[in-house]
Amino acid sequence: MRTLKLTLQYDGTNYVGWQRQDSGTSIQQLLEDALRPIEGAPVTVQGAGRTDAGVHALGQVAHVQLAAVLDPSTLARALNAVLPDDVRVLELVEAAADFHARFSAVGKVYEYRILNGAIVSPFLHRYVWHVTAPLDLDAMRDASAALVGTRDFAAFQGTGSTVSSTERTVSRIDWREGGGPDTPLRIMEIEGTGFLRHMVRNIVGTLVEVGNGRWPAARVEEILRTRDRAAGGPTAPAQGLFLVRVNY
Amino acid sequence: MRTLKLTLQYDGTNYVGWQRQDSGTSIQQLLEDALRPIEGAPVTVQGAGRTDAGVHALGQVAHVQLAAVLDPSTLARALNAVLPDDVRVLELVEAAADFHARFSAVGKVYEYRILNGAIVSPFLHRYVWHVTAPLDLDAMRDASAALVGTRDFAAFQGTGSTVSSTERTVSRIDWREGGGPDTPLRIMEIEGTGFLRHMVRNIVGTLVEVGNGRWPAARVEEILRTRDRAAGGPTAPAQGLFLVRVNY
Repeated sequence: MRTLKLTLQYDGTNYVGWQRQDSGTSIQQLLEDALRPIEGAPVTVQGAGRTDAGVHALGQVAHVQLAAVLDPSTLARALNAVLPDDVRVLELVEAAADFHARFSAVGKVYEYRILNGAIVSPFLHRYVWHVTAPLDLDAMRDASAALVGTRDFAAFQGTGSTVSSTERTVSRIDWREGGGPDTPLRIMEIEGTGFLRHMVRNIVGTLVEVGNGRWPAARVEEILRTRDRAAGGPTAPAQGLFLVRVNY
Repeated sequence: MRTLKLTLQYDGTNYVGWQRQDSGTSIQQLLEDALRPIEGAPVTVQGAGRTDAGVHALGQVAHVQLAAVLDPSTLARALNAVLPDDVRVLELVEAAADFHARFSAVGKVYEYRILNGAIVSPFLHRYVWHVTAPLDLDAMRDASAALVGTRDFAAFQGTGSTVSSTERTVSRIDWREGGGPDTPLRIMEIEGTGFLRHMVRNIVGTLVEVGNGRWPAARVEEILRTRDRAAGGPTAPAQGLFLVRVNY
C-alpha cells in the first residue's frame, strides 16, 4: 500500500460537510465513491479536519492508502473527471508511509468573509455573511488581540462537543478589506494549531458585536475567562467560512 | 405613470435568460412577478438587451412604468426582499418619461471570461469557459483589431436570427489577464453600439482558434468578408459571458 496526499478545493454549499453522514452527500463520500472503482475495493479517505455543512475549502488536505498503481497525476485527472464541478483535486502526490492528514498537521489557516454593505452581489451570496451594520475594523482588530496566544477557548466552543482539552493556540488573527466599491468585504484570516468545533465562527460572531459597536473590545477577554459559550456572540453562518490551508 | 430605471445584477446559471419564455424562469418574469403585487396590476419590464440562457449580468438595465407611488429606494428594497439571491436590483431611480432601456441605449459593454489552466476552481466553474490549450493573448489581440470599427458582422451572427442589417460598430476589444496563479483568467472586454445574436460568443470562439494556434490572426478578416457563420469558430459557451454595462 502507498500513501497519497490530496489537496482539495470545494464549494461547500451543496454538501453536509467533509464527513460521511446519512443525512446527505459529504465531500469524503464523493472521494471514497470515486476511488473505490479505481482501487477495486472500499477505501477510506481521511481529512485534515471536518468542515461543517456549507463551509468551503480552498486547500483542504486528505490522505488515502491505495494498492492501485496509477501514477498520481493520472489519478488526479481520473478523480476530477468523475467528481462534480464544485469539488476539485488541486494536487495529488505520494507521501511518506506514515503521513496522516489529521495527525501530521501542525496548523491550519481559515478565512471568514463578511459582506459589509447594503446589497449582496449574486456572485457572492454563497460565500459571505451579510452584515449591514457598519463594522469598525480597528475595534475588531483590537478585540482580536485577546484571542491570540495559547488560551482556553471553552467559551468559543460549539455546544455538544466533547474534547479532553479546550486549550488551543492561535498564532495570528488578521483582518483585511477586500472586494470592490460595491462589494465591501471584511475578511478575517486566523491561523492556529487546532480549532474547536465552531470556534472560528463563534469568534467571528463575537468580534462582529464589537465591530458594530454593541460591545467594547475588552469584552472579548472577559468572555474568554467565563469559559461559557452563552457569554459570547452568535455563531457566524457557515457560508462565510473557508479552510484556506493545512500546515505540515 | 412614472418611468423608473433599474440597474440589475444576476447570475444567469439558473435562468432561461432575460426574456420571458414558457421553457423556464426568466429574469424579466421574476421582476414582473415581483412588481405586480406592488403595482396591483400587471406590469411590463423592458430590458436593454436579451441576455441568453446562462449569461450573467453585472449591470443590465431595464425600465418600467408604474402608477405606484413608493419612493425608489423603498421600491428597490422591496424588490430585493422578494427576488432570489442570484438576482439583485443594484440601483433604481426615476428616469425621464421617454427613457427606454433598449431604444435609449447608445452602447453596451460585455466581458467574456476564459479559464486557461488545467483545473477549474469550484468557485469559478459557473462563470468561465474552460480552455486547456495555452492561449497566445498577443495573437488574440492582433486578431481582435480586425473586428474593431463599423463592419458587417453577418459571419458572427447566430443562425436563425432575422435582423434588417448585420452592420454593427465595435469601438474596442481589450484582452487582459486576471485571476490568481491557480486560476489564470483571460478576459475579453468588448464595447459597441449594438450586438447581433450570439455575436460576442462567436467572436470569442473564433479568437480562441487564433489563440490556440490553429488559425492565423489574419483569418478573422477573411471570416468577416465571407459573411458566412460557417466560416467562423465555435460559439463560446454562455456561462463565460457577462453584460457589464449599458451606456446611455
